[in-house]
Amino acid sequence: MNRKELVELIRERRSFLCVGLDTDMAKVPEKFRGVKDGAFEFNRAIIDATIDYAVAYKPNLAFYESMGIEGLRQLKLTMDYLHGLGKKAFVIADAKRGDIGNTSQQYAKAFLDPEGEFGFDAMTIAPYMGEDSVVPFTKYEGKWVVLLALTSNKGAFDFQLMRDAESGKRLFEVVLERSKAWGTVENMMYVVGATKAEMLDDVRRVVPDSFLLVPGVGAQGGSLEEVARHGLTKDCGLLVNSSRGIIYASNGEDFAERAGEEARKLQGQMEELMKGTVL
Amino acid sequence: MNRKELVELIRERRSFLCVGLDTDMAKVPEKFRGVKDGAFEFNRAIIDATIDYAVAYKPNLAFYESMGIEGLRQLKLTMDYLHGLGKKAFVIADAKRGDIGNTSQQYAKAFLDPEGEFGFDAMTIAPYMGEDSVVPFTKYEGKWVVLLALTSNKGAFDFQLMRDAESGKRLFEVVLERSKAWGTVENMMYVVGATKAEMLDDVRRVVPDSFLLVPGVGAQGGSLEEVARHGLTKDCGLLVNSSRGIIYASNGEDFAERAGEEARKLQGQMEELMKGTVL
Repeated sequence: MNRKELVELIRERRSFLCVGLDTDMAKVPEKFRGVKDGAFEFNRAIIDATIDYAVAYKPNLAFYESMGIEGLRQLKLTMDYLHGLGKKAFVIADAKRGDIGNTSQQYAKAFLDPEGEFGFDAMTIAPYMGEDSVVPFTKYEGKWVVLLALTSNKGAFDFQLMRDAESGKRLFEVVLERSKAWGTVENMMYVVGATKAEMLDDVRRVVPDSFLLVPGVGAQGGSLEEVARHGLTKDCGLLVNSSRGIIYASNGEDFAERAGEEARKLQGQMEELMKGTVL
Repeated sequence: MNRKELVELIRERRSFLCVGLDTDMAKVPEKFRGVKDGAFEFNRAIIDATIDYAVAYKPNLAFYESMGIEGLRQLKLTMDYLHGLGKKAFVIADAKRGDIGNTSQQYAKAFLDPEGEFGFDAMTIAPYMGEDSVVPFTKYEGKWVVLLALTSNKGAFDFQLMRDAESGKRLFEVVLERSKAWGTVENMMYVVGATKAEMLDDVRRVVPDSFLLVPGVGAQGGSLEEVARHGLTKDCGLLVNSSRGIIYASNGEDFAERAGEEARKLQGQMEELMKGTVL
């Protein structure tokens, strides 16, 4: 999905919500455990309940890999379902990969290649290994790199805020700055945690037009209003992710209904926030 | 495998060689392509030909993931074979993972858990997301984190050498320094590329006793002698990886024989280099 199509989808659904499919079998309702295709069936119910309010889905690979080869099969079923739906969605592999050039090419093939098993639209990438570890992910038409810049966790403070002695910039700003030469606003987005919303101004100074994928709203404590105030652009420029707050809103019989309600609530807030600028 | 066992194995085989199982179906001999379990059969032949000269194997996950779910099955067959061998080997998942705490836990379960499908001894981890992204991988008895410090690729120069305005240290030194508090010399190693052998002295200043996993000898241009001169400790402290130089030494009928020869050559050099210190 290219940028134009993504922005159209955001305007059409009046939402910039991304639903994190961090499907943990220890947390899903009882009835999905120990049954055939349980993780996929849970995902399908969540997707059906939320797709009118969301523009994107983001399965975190760790949750599927921890189920072994069977978990990857459940992920593939989920991707097949998303691709077969009449309703569009932008799907991000939250994989945080990155390796030397020829190896990153293999990861890109695994997740982004339209002929491959998954065919994601985008993939999260860790920047530590630099240019040749990132560029191979920009080589598929209409596919995106989502580069880690400023993450939402506590460990973000360990290295990401380190100041460069030469430029005075912090590491996440150096990552933003340098990576602008590796792609375009059409194929590169950045992860910026909602828990650091006040730093969104600093981020926007370096990448005024880039899409940002913002985790950390909800369970991790970030505020949607703050994120929008500092991050929204005239064609939106934001995808805000909520995982636990939606998919585990309830673990009873009403889990899908409650997930839908939480997504609708966020969509409503997003619609308000976009009025006058994006809409 | 704990540190004592690893050092014993190194002394017994008189080698600190790690063979990178970067199994690319476009590069393996013709007879393995398009046949059932081709990647595994190739790996098995390589392992049989090299195990007397190597102490470790390192499959890079990207090459298996790029073959889809079937690739992961080939990796599992390879792990089952390594676990079932009469001869010991230390096996590293070259996965370069790392995510927020609860997610890293899932990755650790996927690759390190002895009850899991793979049961690796160690796993490469990217440090960008800091402490809570790394610590979950140190929680399995006898299992190791191999943290990226100074990688062997060109992109290593993009961020890893950035100097901290406060301490004057470079990012890779800050990573080494800070991560020492996250584990011990019994469960944390570091990736330091052989292409930057002259910086091994700087690395050893911060982590004098830690094991280092050193890629980049051979195809990438690093020198084994240089690595040993700057990196060897009295209980070795090194695992030097060669991938392409061994597994693709030939792509003819003699591929396994040639892989064995290359591994034996490196083992012979390693034995010489360890004499008087480790042996």
